[in-house]
Amino acid sequence: MPTVYATRKAHFNAAHRLHNPAKSDEWNREAFGKCNSPHFHGHNYHLEVTVAGAPSAERGYVVDLGDLKGVIQERVLEKVDHQNLNETVGFMDGVLPSTENFAMAIWDQLDGHVPGEAQLHRVRLYETERNFVDYYGE
Amino acid sequence: MPTVYATRKAHFNAAHRLHNPAKSDEWNREAFGKCNSPHFHGHNYHLEVTVAGAPSAERGYVVDLGDLKGVIQERVLEKVDHQNLNETVGFMDGVLPSTENFAMAIWDQLDGHVPGEAQLHRVRLYETERNFVDYYGE
Amino acid sequence: MPTVYATRKAHFNAAHRLHNPAKSDEWNREAFGKCNSPHFHGHNYHLEVTVAGAPSAERGYVVDLGDLKGVIQERVLEKVDHQNLNETVGFMDGVLPSTENFAMAIWDQLDGHVPGEAQLHRVRLYETERNFVDYYGE
Amino acid sequence: MPTVYATRKAHFNAAHRLHNPAKSDEWNREAFGKCNSPHFHGHNYHLEVTVAGAPSAERGYVVDLGDLKGVIQERVLEKVDHQNLNETVGFMDGVLPSTENFAMAIWDQLDGHVPGEAQLHRVRLYETERNFVDYYGE
Amino acid sequence: MPTVYATRKAHFNAAHRLHNPAKSDEWNREAFGKCNSPHFHGHNYHLEVTVAGAPSAERGYVVDLGDLKGVIQERVLEKVDHQNLNETVGFMDGVLPSTENFAMAIWDQLDGHVPGEAQLHRVRLYETERNFVDYYGE
Amino acid sequence: MPTVYATRKAHFNAAHRLHNPAKSDEWNREAFGKCNSPHFHGHNYHLEVTVAGAPSAERGYVVDLGDLKGVIQERVLEKVDHQNLNETVGFMDGVLPSTENFAMAIWDQLDGHVPGEAQLHRVRLYETERNFVDYYGE
Repeated sequence: MPTVYATRKAHFNAAHRLHNPAKSDEWNREAFGKCNSPHFHGHNYHLEVTVAGAPSAERGYVVDLGDLKGVIQERVLEKVDHQNLNETVGFMDGVLPSTENFAMAIWDQLDGHVPGEAQLHRVRLYETERNFVDYYGE
Repeated sequence: MPTVYATRKAHFNAAHRLHNPAKSDEWNREAFGKCNSPHFHGHNYHLEVTVAGAPSAERGYVVDLGDLKGVIQERVLEKVDHQNLNETVGFMDGVLPSTENFAMAIWDQLDGHVPGEAQLHRVRLYETERNFVDYYGE
Repeated sequence: MPTVYATRKAHFNAAHRLHNPAKSDEWNREAFGKCNSPHFHGHNYHLEVTVAGAPSAERGYVVDLGDLKGVIQERVLEKVDHQNLNETVGFMDGVLPSTENFAMAIWDQLDGHVPGEAQLHRVRLYETERNFVDYYGE
Repeated sequence: MPTVYATRKAHFNAAHRLHNPAKSDEWNREAFGKCNSPHFHGHNYHLEVTVAGAPSAERGYVVDLGDLKGVIQERVLEKVDHQNLNETVGFMDGVLPSTENFAMAIWDQLDGHVPGEAQLHRVRLYETERNFVDYYGE
Repeated sequence: MPTVYATRKAHFNAAHRLHNPAKSDEWNREAFGKCNSPHFHGHNYHLEVTVAGAPSAERGYVVDLGDLKGVIQERVLEKVDHQNLNETVGFMDGVLPSTENFAMAIWDQLDGHVPGEAQLHRVRLYETERNFVDYYGE
Repeated sequence: MPTVYATRKAHFNAAHRLHNPAKSDEWNREAFGKCNSPHFHGHNYHLEVTVAGAPSAERGYVVDLGDLKGVIQERVLEKVDHQNLNETVGFMDGVLPSTENFAMAIWDQLDGHVPGEAQLHRVRLYETERNFVDYYGE
């Protein structure tokens, strides 16, 4: 069976700050610079979710992208869009909201919830146009 | 020998509808929603073709991108640009024109026709800015 | 009062062909080339709607972009997305679906329906990444 | 003398919330929805600054874009990048941070500070890829 | 008669340096910095050509974009693509190749050569993603 | 330990020509066409540098992107931006400046210089919007 990788993009925005509460304020300022600003800053995040599998004979789909969009909406966007990653997102509680950690947390939100037979393959998360991370679940 | 992956982008537009003629109209409406619209709809497709190989000592190329562009033009674009994927494209006869199936059919059009020593590595096909698929030939 | 111009983008796809039914098939083939293909082709259209006005003192908005999005959805996207501009779009009946004519028809769909005090200023319509038209209602 | 319009783009990110402190919390929730979220959210803003004038005979420039970049850096980016528009930006004190109001405030920061003979012509501010505003100073 | 503005994009690349031969080398280094580098540097230029007019009743076009593409190809791209703006482009002889001067020279190449009834309205020229100029012929 | 791939984009421009000095002028014209133009041409190059590693427990970073930006600046951009790849870039001496060879040379500039524990994973280099190459160091 051939494997095709299908990707769906989504967009949301959120506030955050980089701050490790186990460390002193001075350590945090040194470690994170302006990203540690106590009043928060924010981003338009761009998310790409890739799933892998064999296209079905009947529909020609690896996954129904409308269904996948619904899962991304329910399990990620409704929880993070227009939210504060340090304060109001349950699945980020206790997680330092770097792009890396945020992408891994999004993976955990989606893994096991891809509709049908396809497998989650990659989460790509852009924090800005110039910076992004990829996570493959391992 | 090092391996470099060289990618060339191309663009075309086409009409299609998602419809499985082995199934009832009702099944198709249920399975594909507005993508089953009997009067067709269409897309500006964006195609990325990636080939892999060692750069030649004399020219520094994995592949002459002008030659690769010519092959993509002849074997894909001339057959699909401004066409109807359900009705007027020979290599899509009997193929349900999902993005997945279309990308695999484009792979078959190109595989074995890459100029010179390089090997076809990946076909990426965007149906819209938010949806794309990748196929690696296996 | 200052004037600010606020723009909202939207996306849809549709099939069409360029064909003037008052003319012969030969004239149409000559006039429109592959855009006259009888089986249709299609595009991912990108629409930008710009409205002009003074930001309100209470909300700071020229227009509530959520409301504007709703009007664009109801008066344009629901009528054209995944449709055939030659066959299934009421407001395009009898209109040759060039990008120019389509943009003017979209203007007519929106003019007088912008929420609140703002005025419709411009409709910009991309047929492909390389081609777009602007219409200012005059 | 011919007039040429030269544009420089810049990028920054910031947190904000839409909240009118002269109104009740209930009014604000009704007026602004999720944009009123009390823990803030944020954006990657994209700013385009356009100046107009005649290219100089000696250098061929309407404005030295390096100098203009420096003015944008000093008068806008250093004050807003990684900041909170409601709390930590002096020139936004008492201003409801809608995209419209923010663009007009950026105009006021830049007007009269364009290097050389050129005149400030337009401030364009993208809050997201789908929403932007233009302000021409009148 | 309504006026519609139709835009066609084109792309080319060229080498150049900013250097005013009427001035000393020291003046040029001071005036242009690294853009004065004697071995040249280069850009992928992006050109947008906008024409204005009434859509024709028969074809619905302000201008046949294929014809306009041909004029841009013949009068601009064939003369500048893969060329050196200081040394090998006839219509740039004696012109300091700033983006402003280059855009005005491209205007002069196109003005009076737009196919049919449409009028040249604007030349927009991107030197980089962050810098562009507009010229309206006056 | 999970592996995350973090990517930083950078931009620069340079002049070059494709010319193999071990071959005749005629061979070069035949092999490279207009890319062999003796007066050079140029590009806005877009560079993506991807590093791989485990996010640190304390900072949540695979790599401090500010540090990585500094390394890219020092070891690549300061040597190539506004330069001539055939004449003024030390690490390109004797290297035919195809995109493939240039990407491999950039890899060699960066390999072993990634800050901290992360490993260089991929260099992606766009010569134009339509052409890019990837190199993984093997």
